[in-house]
Amino acid sequence: MPELRKDPITGRWVIISTDRAKRPSDFIRKSVPLPTNGICPFDYGNEHKTPPEILAYRTSGDRDQPGWRVRVVPNKFPVLGIEGELNRQGEGMYDKMSGIGAHEVIIETPDHAATFAEMPERQIEEVLWAFKERVNDLKKDHRFRYIILFKNHGEAAGASLEHPHCQLIALPVIPKRVKEQVDAGKAFYDLKERCIFCDIIRHESAAGVRLVMETDRLTVLEPYAPRFPFETWILPKRHESHFEEAGAPTLQDLAWMLRSTLRKIDKVLERPAYNFIVHSAPVQEPPLPYYHWHIEIIPKLTKVAGFEWGTGFYINPTPPEESARFLREAGLA
Amino acid sequence: MPELRKDPITGRWVIISTDRAKRPSDFIRKSVPLPTNGICPFDYGNEHKTPPEILAYRTSGDRDQPGWRVRVVPNKFPVLGIEGELNRQGEGMYDKMSGIGAHEVIIETPDHAATFAEMPERQIEEVLWAFKERVNDLKKDHRFRYIILFKNHGEAAGASLEHPHCQLIALPVIPKRVKEQVDAGKAFYDLKERCIFCDIIRHESAAGVRLVMETDRLTVLEPYAPRFPFETWILPKRHESHFEEAGAPTLQDLAWMLRSTLRKIDKVLERPAYNFIVHSAPVQEPPLPYYHWHIEIIPKLTKVAGFEWGTGFYINPTPPEESARFLREAGLA
Repeated sequence: MPELRKDPITGRWVIISTDRAKRPSDFIRKSVPLPTNGICPFDYGNEHKTPPEILAYRTSGDRDQPGWRVRVVPNKFPVLGIEGELNRQGEGMYDKMSGIGAHEVIIETPDHAATFAEMPERQIEEVLWAFKERVNDLKKDHRFRYIILFKNHGEAAGASLEHPHCQLIALPVIPKRVKEQVDAGKAFYDLKERCIFCDIIRHESAAGVRLVMETDRLTVLEPYAPRFPFETWILPKRHESHFEEAGAPTLQDLAWMLRSTLRKIDKVLERPAYNFIVHSAPVQEPPLPYYHWHIEIIPKLTKVAGFEWGTGFYINPTPPEESARFLREAGLA
Repeated sequence: MPELRKDPITGRWVIISTDRAKRPSDFIRKSVPLPTNGICPFDYGNEHKTPPEILAYRTSGDRDQPGWRVRVVPNKFPVLGIEGELNRQGEGMYDKMSGIGAHEVIIETPDHAATFAEMPERQIEEVLWAFKERVNDLKKDHRFRYIILFKNHGEAAGASLEHPHCQLIALPVIPKRVKEQVDAGKAFYDLKERCIFCDIIRHESAAGVRLVMETDRLTVLEPYAPRFPFETWILPKRHESHFEEAGAPTLQDLAWMLRSTLRKIDKVLERPAYNFIVHSAPVQEPPLPYYHWHIEIIPKLTKVAGFEWGTGFYINPTPPEESARFLREAGLA
């Protein structure tokens, strides 16, 4: 008998197929192909092919020259424009505003063929520092109410360039799904005076069955009601609402955790395409006792179809207890 | 400058790229391949390969024999089980219940190679009658609170069998996205004493710019803030909350509209994969003045990636005014 499980934060139900659970080898999928050689705007020597850099950590070289280790540039084809006023207005019965925002690309490394699972921890740590630095800079612009950091890895997960990169989008509104999570966290806090994410971390750490690994600072777990097979969350153990407030020891630990988790996923699922997303509190809010930043990793294994689009209801063929076990048992080598 | 537009029903913002709008030929996509010959459990003569039929419209033959025109069978691999009690329970801090529900397949025609865009209107009309009949039968079971009807066409849209078929899933809970729509419709009604969908139909019919076509009974339009390029809605002009209450003239008209709309989509987008979903009010509710059943058609043209999963915010590269114009201008031949 399948199970219906309720996500404790958003209240979303998911269908978990417990009896004919899919094992990693049951998913028909393509591994992300090894990178090819070709002209890439993110390689050394092609810095002029991107808009001028906003931030770079460099070993040598001048602005927009080789010698950088991590480089942040505006997206050449931004989904939102940085200049102008929001210009909120009605249009008949509808509401609109100008598409003001920032859309940046974080080039993780000059090494075209690197991946998060393989690159040195120190390199990932620098990417995380670039995330933090860019958010702290952009939040000074009060037009921006939410900033999302994410990575699309592999064509099936929406990546259009293979050179390792993450993206940042700053938005003039708080997205619905974020608001839902924040509001739900607040409702729980009003009732219990506890953060629901802190409760989940304690519960999962004690139960162990959905735990992938943990350190003193971070927990990696499979959520109780995941939308997708092998959906994996990384959360800081100490309560903190904003990712951009994370300190050096947390970022160092996170670099190792992210690398280790993606290594395990690569091993169990044979280098799948994936998305990861940094979930953090709205940037103009003060530290919140009821929201808890975390990273969600979603390997691209299933297709979202009519049922999901129509209902917001997900069918997950792999119980999180199973995926946690596969990930726990996969070594880090 | 791109635009941020707000969906008037759910309040979800979308980014519409107005200046570098994608035209139909800009989408990299694969047409749904023409059907191959092979062993298909939905063909005549293979009736024993499916579970016994629940409903069939027949020209000849006995139960589970050839001679049917439309045939409804339980899904051989159901995502929910039909037998048992809901058995709601807590599990530590979490909530779950047994996966009770119905999962049926509506085989639209014995013709393996047919598509909605090509089959006779009368055939589609019979499929719609089968929808209606199955919902009216299943809603007698008070464990079921929501019934969704949908079609995945083409592998990219999640179809695993190419023989033309739709699916029905009856659920013991009201899905989040449905509840959101119904609640939002109610909030609007409480304020204005009008159905927001009726308002949209009147507005779009007068404005024309997002209108695809209309008859006395039905309107086909591109919504103001669509999540996806060429997202298309078909709505009845007369207010009605439940699809299963639709009368014979509406179903007849709808068969023609659905066929014509899918023909236009096939023509403009070169036979894309698509999903369509029947959105209807929760089955145990009486007729509601504030919800309005409709069909949403979503051609599969873009990839949903980290940004969308993280925010519930969608980037749509084609303004609905553009897609409406392409669909209006495409003939029906």
